[in-house]
Order: sequence, then C-alpha cells, then structure tokens
Amino acid sequence: MQIPTLDDMLAARRRIAPHVHNTPVMTSRKLNELVGAQLFLKCENFQKAGAFKARGALNAVLGLSEEQAANGVATHSSGNHGTCLAYAAGRRGIRCTVIMPHTAPQAKKDAVRGYGGSVVECEASTSSREAVFAEVVAATGAEFVHPYNDHRVIAGQATCSAELIDQVEGLDAVVAPIGGGGMISGTCLTLSNLAPNIEIFAAEPEQADDAYRSFKAGHIISDDAPSTIADGLKVPLKPLTWHFVSSYVTDIKTASEQEIIEAMKLIWKWMKIVVEPSSAVPLATIIKNPQPFAGQRVGIIITGGNVDMEKLPWA
Amino acid sequence: MQIPTLDDMLAARRRIAPHVHNTPVMTSRKLNELVGAQLFLKCENFQKAGAFKARGALNAVLGLSEEQAANGVATHSSGNHGTCLAYAAGRRGIRCTVIMPHTAPQAKKDAVRGYGGSVVECEASTSSREAVFAEVVAATGAEFVHPYNDHRVIAGQATCSAELIDQVEGLDAVVAPIGGGGMISGTCLTLSNLAPNIEIFAAEPEQADDAYRSFKAGHIISDDAPSTIADGLKVPLKPLTWHFVSSYVTDIKTASEQEIIEAMKLIWKWMKIVVEPSSAVPLATIIKNPQPFAGQRVGIIITGGNVDMEKLPWA
Repeated sequence: MQIPTLDDMLAARRRIAPHVHNTPVMTSRKLNELVGAQLFLKCENFQKAGAFKARGALNAVLGLSEEQAANGVATHSSGNHGTCLAYAAGRRGIRCTVIMPHTAPQAKKDAVRGYGGSVVECEASTSSREAVFAEVVAATGAEFVHPYNDHRVIAGQATCSAELIDQVEGLDAVVAPIGGGGMISGTCLTLSNLAPNIEIFAAEPEQADDAYRSFKAGHIISDDAPSTIADGLKVPLKPLTWHFVSSYVTDIKTASEQEIIEAMKLIWKWMKIVVEPSSAVPLATIIKNPQPFAGQRVGIIITGGNVDMEKLPWA
Repeated sequence: MQIPTLDDMLAARRRIAPHVHNTPVMTSRKLNELVGAQLFLKCENFQKAGAFKARGALNAVLGLSEEQAANGVATHSSGNHGTCLAYAAGRRGIRCTVIMPHTAPQAKKDAVRGYGGSVVECEASTSSREAVFAEVVAATGAEFVHPYNDHRVIAGQATCSAELIDQVEGLDAVVAPIGGGGMISGTCLTLSNLAPNIEIFAAEPEQADDAYRSFKAGHIISDDAPSTIADGLKVPLKPLTWHFVSSYVTDIKTASEQEIIEAMKLIWKWMKIVVEPSSAVPLATIIKNPQPFAGQRVGIIITGGNVDMEKLPWA
C-alpha cells in the first residue's frame, strides 16, 4: 500500500494545473446567518467535467509512462470518476474504457462517450463487473485507475484543499462528503501537512453511513448496496482511504435524505449554483449540528454539479 | 423626460459600489462549441437579491435627498424590481412599499418582506393597481421608483456593462434580454459612450414580442397581457427606454418558449449556474440565429437567478 505524500500532492498540482480550473470559493450571507458560521464553498461543480474527480483522474493519467499510456486506462464507475477519467484520457490522447452496468443512466454513458471514452456494459452485479473488467484489461493491457483507493488519485484530490487554503485565510474547519473517501483522504493529506490546526469533518448520508460506523468501530465496515440520492457516496472505504480517515478526521456526521434535499435546495436557491446531492451533505450536517462550528470559518467542498435536470430529487 | 448620461452612470457606479457585487464573467467551452462563438456570461444571478435590478434600485434609493428618503420609496412589481427595491431601501434604512396583485406568488411577497419591505395587495388589474398605488403614495409621500422608465434606474443598470467591458477585452457584441428595456437602455448608455464599436442585440420571447414589433414599426407597441415563462419580460417599452432602443440597438431577435427552456437547461447543465428563464433568452436567440455571431466575442447579460425550484418550466 503506497501512501501518497505531500510531495505527491505538490507534483500533482504542477502536473494537472494546465487542465483544471482553480475553482472559485463562494459565500452566502443568507447561509451564514442560517448556520451561525462563515461558510466558504469550494466550488468543484465548476471543475472540468463537473466534478473534483477530474483532479485525481488527471494526475493518474498524466503520470503514466509512455509505455503504460500506450495501452490506455480503464475503470469501473457509473459516476463522476468514469466521466472524469475519460476527460483526463482525452487530454493525453489515450484510450479510456469505462465498465458500467447496462442499467446505468443513459446520461452517464453519454458523458463518458462525449469525452471520447468507450463504455463497456456489464450486468448489475459485482461478479459480472469484475469478470468484464478482467476481460477488458486482458485484451488491452489498460492501466486500472481505481476511483479512490489509488495513491495517484488521492494525491490529485488533495490539490483541492491546497487551493482552498490559498484562497481563504484562517479556516477553522473543512467539511467534505465521504463515500469511498477519496476527497476526504486528499483533504487529510494536504491539511495534516500544511494546516494541521484545521479540523476535518466528513459528512455522510444516514442511509449509506458505513464510513460513520467504520469510524466508530475502528475498522472498515462495508454495506452491500446502500440506497441514497447522494449517489456518489454509496461506495465503501478501502485500506488507503481508511488510513487517512482513521488518522486525521475529527468526526463524521450524518444527515437524512430529506435533510440533504433541503440543503441542496438552499444552495440552489441562495447561491444560484447547481450542485449534486452529494455536495449538499456537508451543509445538511452543519444545519443539523451547528454547535461545533458556531462562529467559525468553515470550508465546504462542493464536490460536483452533475445532476439529471429531469429528475430533481424534490420534483 | 430626463435622459441619463455617461456621468450619471459613473456617479451610479461610485454610489452603489459598496452594496453590489462586481459579478463574475463565466465561460463554457461546451456552449462556445455549440454556437460557434466565444460567449462571456455576465452573471447577475449572483448579484445582491439575485438580479441586476439591485443596481438601478440602489442608485435611485441612495441618490434621494434626506427629505425624500424620509418618506420612503414605493413601486409596483411582482418581479425582481420589487425585491431589489426592498433590498436597496433596507441598505439605506428607509421604508419600501411594493404593490402586488394578491395573485402574485407567495415567494415573491416573502422575498420583499425578507428584505424588510411592505407588501400591499391589489386586484390583478391595471386600474386596481393604479388606484392602490395612488393611495399608498398619498398616505406616505413615498418616492415612486419605476422598474425601468426612470433615468436613475437606467443609470444604475448601465453599471453592469461598464463592469463587463472592464472584465472582457475586445467584445464584438452584447446580447441582453428585453422586456421594458431597462437593462438594454443601460447597456446602450454605457456602450454607446465607452465602446461604440460593440453591437447591441436585444433578445425577446416570441410570445411577448412587443419590443421586436415596436423596433420594426418605429414606434412603441404594447401588448395587454402577454404570456411567457420569461416572466420578467412581459412589460412594454416606455418613452425613456424607447429612446435608447430606437437609437442604439442593432437588432432584436426572438425565441419560442421551447427554445428558451432548452437554452435554460443548457446553461444549468453545462455552466452549473441557476438562471431564471429571462436570462436564457439571449442564448436561445443565438442558438437560433448563430450567423451574426460566428467567430465573435459575445457578451451575454445573465439577468437573474430567482427561480421557483418547485415549478421548473421543464418539470
């Protein structure tokens, strides 16, 4: 297990800089009044391909040797990682194959193809996914880029909070959503080295609270198939992300589906930005548990803005 | 009829600066590819109170003498002007009364009250509105701030394109929505003085195309009660705005309701920002008529982001 270091993050920042946005930090007096703290939203919904995952995917793709790159990259993801890996591969001009269940939304398949990637469909089971994935790798020799349990990916995600602390002085805390733990691990990597006084909180849907239960239990607990509108947060922790979560996270807070939807609407309404449900989980947990943040300067990672406009969760 | 001048715009810019955002200009590679031009969106959806109308309202309110201000301000508007006038009055700490038909959406009444304004309800007819408005003014001596046929308001709206040309060099054209013509008039005021080579286009819903027909006919035509989802654009031109439109606008283009909805979805989807239907009319007309803009650098005024999330036009 290769644990990424501060130097890996700094190298990632240089490597991906030409291909990512230094996304803006936005504030809202209305939301500040609502929670009694000063919130600073790092808007990765404005990131290339609509999500922070462009950072990790680019770092992995751009760091490949010429020889590795010649065989392309592959992953399994029906979410932002697949789209972002296709974007990253496109920037380097190499092949990208994304394995997705045939039940995945058409919009997700279109997004991968829109960036020049190939979609290979499997059945909606882990065994089918693994079998199909193994076939693809055997046939192409493609490099596997895991959505989060990968030191290159975590080093890439870590560049987000490096920008945040350049943009906002004197933060007391940062809150980010947690699914597999890639963003939180990157946040831990950067802040534990560069700003160890900033507390790190993770935010998770109640209905997919495996990271919360893992954190309380002291070991990884994974659920089979949790259901939540925050569909980027269904996946379990893995050894590499567990390392960071168990070492550097102050606490994990959860919120219900209704609380997540309400927080999402508040962000859309008051900040005029389109954010996906996962991005609203931090605000939902802060509204639910305002005490630890009272009067503080709190960074929030808005992870992405890829939403199916035809199926909004409150419609 | 007092026609606002460049000096009025410059004075407005100084006067309102502490209370407005210099809103960001956003771009999208996807939208540029779609229309074959470089688009620069001036994002007044991020403006205070969610719309450019904060500019004109503030300029009117902050320019009042102490004596005038003591009696407060009043207007009739069930749209952004009412909300923005309440915001402006709140900044100065004076009274604001907004006359609205009792049929106006609760959210609009709440928005005015949320900024400290009073709502007085009338029947949904012009005669009732005028009668109730006259009563309010007689009782309070409040200063009437018309939503657009007012030199102070136009000078305020004119600050928007002054920012835009500071932010983006070498624009060939600017496209803004047209309803009563306040934003277009302000745009004409600024650009005709400071950047006369930039062509000015107005964009209007087909279903409320009175400005288009006025422009072609050479005199003001007003419709009684047009119906469009771009509800900020239903009102007719008035003498002051007609002066600017007839003198400085290159052309007025129209788009159908469906085209406006499609453009709105494109902006939400690709730019991750919440914009109201009126704001999507310029993009809708550019998609429909791309030829005049081919290869050009085109500014678009995104007028506001106040949308009822529960009633999206495509839902």
